[in-house]
Amino acid sequence: MATANQEHQENDDVWGSKSWKFLSSVRQQSPLIQCITNLVSMDLMANILLAAGASPAMVHSVLEIPDFTPHIQSLLINVGTLTPDWLPSMKAAANLANELGKPWVLDPAAVGASSFRLKACLELIELKPTVIRGNGSEIIALSMASIGSTKGADSLHESSDALEVAKSLAKSSGSIVAISGSVDYVTDGQRVVGAHNGVQLMQKITASGCAVTALIAAFVAIDPKNAFEATVCAFSVFGLAGEVGMDLAKGPGSLRMHLIDSLYGLDQDIVLNRVNIKRFS
Amino acid sequence: MATANQEHQENDDVWGSKSWKFLSSVRQQSPLIQCITNLVSMDLMANILLAAGASPAMVHSVLEIPDFTPHIQSLLINVGTLTPDWLPSMKAAANLANELGKPWVLDPAAVGASSFRLKACLELIELKPTVIRGNGSEIIALSMASIGSTKGADSLHESSDALEVAKSLAKSSGSIVAISGSVDYVTDGQRVVGAHNGVQLMQKITASGCAVTALIAAFVAIDPKNAFEATVCAFSVFGLAGEVGMDLAKGPGSLRMHLIDSLYGLDQDIVLNRVNIKRFS
Amino acid sequence: MATANQEHQENDDVWGSKSWKFLSSVRQQSPLIQCITNLVSMDLMANILLAAGASPAMVHSVLEIPDFTPHIQSLLINVGTLTPDWLPSMKAAANLANELGKPWVLDPAAVGASSFRLKACLELIELKPTVIRGNGSEIIALSMASIGSTKGADSLHESSDALEVAKSLAKSSGSIVAISGSVDYVTDGQRVVGAHNGVQLMQKITASGCAVTALIAAFVAIDPKNAFEATVCAFSVFGLAGEVGMDLAKGPGSLRMHLIDSLYGLDQDIVLNRVNIKRFS
Repeated sequence: MATANQEHQENDDVWGSKSWKFLSSVRQQSPLIQCITNLVSMDLMANILLAAGASPAMVHSVLEIPDFTPHIQSLLINVGTLTPDWLPSMKAAANLANELGKPWVLDPAAVGASSFRLKACLELIELKPTVIRGNGSEIIALSMASIGSTKGADSLHESSDALEVAKSLAKSSGSIVAISGSVDYVTDGQRVVGAHNGVQLMQKITASGCAVTALIAAFVAIDPKNAFEATVCAFSVFGLAGEVGMDLAKGPGSLRMHLIDSLYGLDQDIVLNRVNIKRFS
Repeated sequence: MATANQEHQENDDVWGSKSWKFLSSVRQQSPLIQCITNLVSMDLMANILLAAGASPAMVHSVLEIPDFTPHIQSLLINVGTLTPDWLPSMKAAANLANELGKPWVLDPAAVGASSFRLKACLELIELKPTVIRGNGSEIIALSMASIGSTKGADSLHESSDALEVAKSLAKSSGSIVAISGSVDYVTDGQRVVGAHNGVQLMQKITASGCAVTALIAAFVAIDPKNAFEATVCAFSVFGLAGEVGMDLAKGPGSLRMHLIDSLYGLDQDIVLNRVNIKRFS
Repeated sequence: MATANQEHQENDDVWGSKSWKFLSSVRQQSPLIQCITNLVSMDLMANILLAAGASPAMVHSVLEIPDFTPHIQSLLINVGTLTPDWLPSMKAAANLANELGKPWVLDPAAVGASSFRLKACLELIELKPTVIRGNGSEIIALSMASIGSTKGADSLHESSDALEVAKSLAKSSGSIVAISGSVDYVTDGQRVVGAHNGVQLMQKITASGCAVTALIAAFVAIDPKNAFEATVCAFSVFGLAGEVGMDLAKGPGSLRMHLIDSLYGLDQDIVLNRVNIKRFS
């Protein structure tokens, strides 16, 4: 008879093959990902999506959404450099994605920076994102609907500090909630799974958080009904690319480059052997 | 007596020295290139222009065009993240460039994404760009004045698929039409020349297409009356820099870096020996 | 009895330890730097600030300034891609920084490009920046309140050409004035100090000038009362990172990467031994 521990172990072992399935499907299907994102992140985000095999499209004019959004496989919205003129586009794209049954992912970047940004994020959450991905401070700010708890784009909190509020947010919003940190956690309000791949130096690469949200959008595009698993796997694949890149890196500049190369080159063996995902509760 | 084949051969051999002449002139004269371009491409485009020896200037406020555009050697307009507030600047700059007899180059990036973008590009073509550079899908969308045939910024068509419509577009517009692909084709409506340099992995670098259009603008600045030849040579020099960079690259991240280094370092020998340009018809 | 020469020597030797103190303090305190900057520079600037140990925040919506700016340690304003809608944010942030006693740094990028940009910079100087950093052509354009003397973002003048007008500008504005070039000069209107670190190839990296201004903002954040010294040290630390990076670089693409790595990795020994700062007058 299998013990509880063994069952956990078996469950955990499945994540490697799931991660590989998502990554290889992105490479084969090259899903079209519409990104309405901040000005800092565009170069890295597009290059990460291309390296993963997806097709990025930075299309953010409100005039283009009716024509363009019907052709996409998923949508990413990131508020990192939000100004009032961008918000109508974000809402129009999220609404149309919902109407057409396409998944969309929200990155509430630096949501605690201002009441304007917080209000915008709360309004976007009303439009039922499939996934919300932030760091500890962002998820806390969002959950408490309070500003001032973030330090720009950098987190002042461990991802584990945000776990309980993340579960509540997942329940109240109906979204998968994903928290980046030394361990990346994903919850649907009930389950919590931790993705343990990654290296600390990735925090010194601007927009690396934005980029992993884009990878989540690409993985979710493959199997929107399993957004929970897609999100967990995207975290680990991105973190694993960082680990492999770290072998060659001498600092954050070279890590940024090797991360892109590694994501492009990840093969089945390394994904099966090194993806490190564990059920947390 | 020379056979037809020999004549072709002789013609083809001339392209190496032409390419070197354009590149070395850019390095000596450092032409000032005004770029009104999309938000994703700015970093790579400016770095490619600097590596080639040109002087890039991302100046896009409509208020600045009367003061600034008279000082430039050529103008690049790229609609990759077009919003309605940028269009008046593009038109004002193109009009002023025409008035002052300066060449300008249009990159109809992702023109098939929306009717808004298509209409904007058709209006810009009325302002007589010296060169139009797109991928196969973009040139087809532009020629057919139809949307939906592109997949974001990525092409669904081989460059050769667009050859016939490109010739028609060149005739109707009076512009040189340039199609990126595994072979890059350039036509003035009569002649077609193919530039055979480049490596496939360059397609995994975001804005690499935008960057080659900027290099075309720099080469055209050197000799606006020979925009056809300038365009062909820019394609091959850019592709050759990619080939040299590919020797050191381990993926798209490092290729992006080595491409810039290689373009900066290309010497006469390698240009004369490895530029691969052939008359197609 | 010490000769005048010996005294100079002793003064000069102090700069290594001062530079190290600024850099190590940035690493320990991780000051939050608000950047209202041009679209070309965002990726490099954020990565340079992260590599130095600071926390960058590209927050430029006028709606966010009342909530966000009170939390920052310093503010950077760069007009490189100025449009009229950004100017109110710049002024609001500068005014609030002044009100709250926080330092702010102005980068008059390509100020000579247009009368619109020149006027904006002159208005910003009225708001009493702690430091103004430009290249020779920019400082001359600003001092003479004249346009046309710059070539986009590239300088047509040596930094030494701008020394006298820089001193006048420092006196009239009350700002520290910093001129980038083969030698970087800093003046408060009386003293002039030259930072002799750096390599010429850094000029071929787009936004490297913007990035050093951001590093100045980070150093000034540590000790706003010694903005003169902070500026000199930031110049030398940035230049030194370039020198160390140059040992590995093969062109401007790889130098950009190694510069970031080197800045991240600079240790006390190398800073003490290789910072090269000399009183000029």
